[in-house]
Amino acid sequence: MQINVSANVEVAVVGLGLMGCSIVVSLLASGHQVVALAPILGEKEKAINHIVDLLRHADRSNLLSKGLSASVEALKVTDDYRDIATCKFVQECVIEDKEIKKVVYEKIEEQVSGDTIIATNTSAIPISELQTFVSHPNRFIGVHWAEPAYMTRFLEVTCGVKTGTDTATYVMQLGGIWGKEPTLLKKDIRGFITNRLMYAVYREALTLVENGDATMEDADKVFRYDVGSWITLMGIFRRLDFTGFADYIDSFEGILPKLSNRTDVPDLMRPLVAERARGIHNGKGFYNYNEKQAKAWEEAFAQFNKEIYDLATRYTEKHIREKVYNEEKKLSKI
Amino acid sequence: MQINVSANVEVAVVGLGLMGCSIVVSLLASGHQVVALAPILGEKEKAINHIVDLLRHADRSNLLSKGLSASVEALKVTDDYRDIATCKFVQECVIEDKEIKKVVYEKIEEQVSGDTIIATNTSAIPISELQTFVSHPNRFIGVHWAEPAYMTRFLEVTCGVKTGTDTATYVMQLGGIWGKEPTLLKKDIRGFITNRLMYAVYREALTLVENGDATMEDADKVFRYDVGSWITLMGIFRRLDFTGFADYIDSFEGILPKLSNRTDVPDLMRPLVAERARGIHNGKGFYNYNEKQAKAWEEAFAQFNKEIYDLATRYTEKHIREKVYNEEKKLSKI
Repeated sequence: MQINVSANVEVAVVGLGLMGCSIVVSLLASGHQVVALAPILGEKEKAINHIVDLLRHADRSNLLSKGLSASVEALKVTDDYRDIATCKFVQECVIEDKEIKKVVYEKIEEQVSGDTIIATNTSAIPISELQTFVSHPNRFIGVHWAEPAYMTRFLEVTCGVKTGTDTATYVMQLGGIWGKEPTLLKKDIRGFITNRLMYAVYREALTLVENGDATMEDADKVFRYDVGSWITLMGIFRRLDFTGFADYIDSFEGILPKLSNRTDVPDLMRPLVAERARGIHNGKGFYNYNEKQAKAWEEAFAQFNKEIYDLATRYTEKHIREKVYNEEKKLSKI
Repeated sequence: MQINVSANVEVAVVGLGLMGCSIVVSLLASGHQVVALAPILGEKEKAINHIVDLLRHADRSNLLSKGLSASVEALKVTDDYRDIATCKFVQECVIEDKEIKKVVYEKIEEQVSGDTIIATNTSAIPISELQTFVSHPNRFIGVHWAEPAYMTRFLEVTCGVKTGTDTATYVMQLGGIWGKEPTLLKKDIRGFITNRLMYAVYREALTLVENGDATMEDADKVFRYDVGSWITLMGIFRRLDFTGFADYIDSFEGILPKLSNRTDVPDLMRPLVAERARGIHNGKGFYNYNEKQAKAWEEAFAQFNKEIYDLATRYTEKHIREKVYNEEKKLSKI
């Protein structure tokens, strides 16, 4: 591995939709020089404005390691692939279309050197499949971000069958520099970790509502107020450690056979997709939204996200380990 | 319905383990006169101290509607069933053992009048089954709390086949008085809502780890930092509204067939249950804990819980509805 793992690495983001812009801001916040490449005609101007808006938001939240003006200076927005020639890490986040991604990879590889890592933000297409499109598959990897990229710790790193171990190690280290808590999936399983876990919930919740066993509103409340009250601190396995296991054999034996095992798209979902419902984005969803309501929810999410990010900062594993360590140090002095 | 729905109703809690004490504090915090009944010999003294500790904690968090000393005055801890004679709502939360619950219900019914509601905190035994033990099954209902009861909005109300609609309505109204966001399950399905959704997650997560596809630590991180970043605001269906549905048919068709459908107890779970692992309570769990670590996690949860409760207070549906309403009022004045 010749590349130096630090914020001095020049990086690029290809694809400047909402997610791409948000990733650009996360990389700038960490101190990188960032080339933001708009592969779609006319995307460039819109992206510049959006990135600067997000940078201001990140600045108000004290997330820019170099401050606002230096971060703006470290940014180059372009539609010319030649500008990424010196980048050692390229994050692709164009739409989920194999043919388009294939063309984008060809254009990237025409410019960058063979030791450059190309990462895809896909959450739907297997990494091993996309890997067949590039000439250095060992340096190709999945790096899946969550929105807003500069204000979540989530980063899901996924290897394809041909991804090199050193590539994975390098990206995990970069993730640390970006302030993430990256996870590493060595096997390219469908849906990665996060989607599999959430689709297990979606399947059960949609089935309960479809069968008339629960209302949508109640399923939402339960998740907000029960699971929500511990999840950010514990995750899944530590939650089980908190509850203790006394009754678990009985509970697993009792509940597992009752859970939905369906493999079809739930009926509740189909009509929404058919009428091109896009939830708060066009007012049609499981709930309906007029313009003001959609805006109120969007604003609430932006604010909430900042608050939960700050809250999570005070409860990382590292924080709790340090607390134990300080306690021990105090005791050893007595 | 003759009973008046207000904090003036005299209520009782039978069973003063950790959960019972915590429920007592929630009821006192709402302004009720509470009879706390210890059905186990010697439980009374321990319970008094624990309840007073929790009351102090609730007081520091400004949760006691009447303040600390009046709340203590409103409490009667007893081991004599005759003390519950005038109570109109009795919450049972003894251990998950049908025979024991049966005896407890008999003792309760010997004292209270026929219009008293008896609620069980069970999360494992069907309400319809427990209902066969009482002489007024229409006034028997499931009321399932989450820990710490005085600092979560979760309250899962579940009807058995014979529960009266007026009983359900009454308990839902009481839940409102207690500051909860109660959910109502009219059909007594196994695992209610919350456990079914979480067991769907446990099933998938345990299977991923068992198969070597993901580590425990990574499954925890994913849930903490991805799901955790929106769940308290949105729940499940509104989350789908936020993501929009464009790719969902493909995703459901791709991921659902890959999810675990097992009905057996996961192998990862069995040895822990066999060696009587109780997680942080005895240091043996998916993770291991020495005494200091267990204490650090317990303290972290108590603090975290207060913070997430306060955070959730700023993002209730009501709060967002009011924001929209104020916005409209402002516009109508222009």
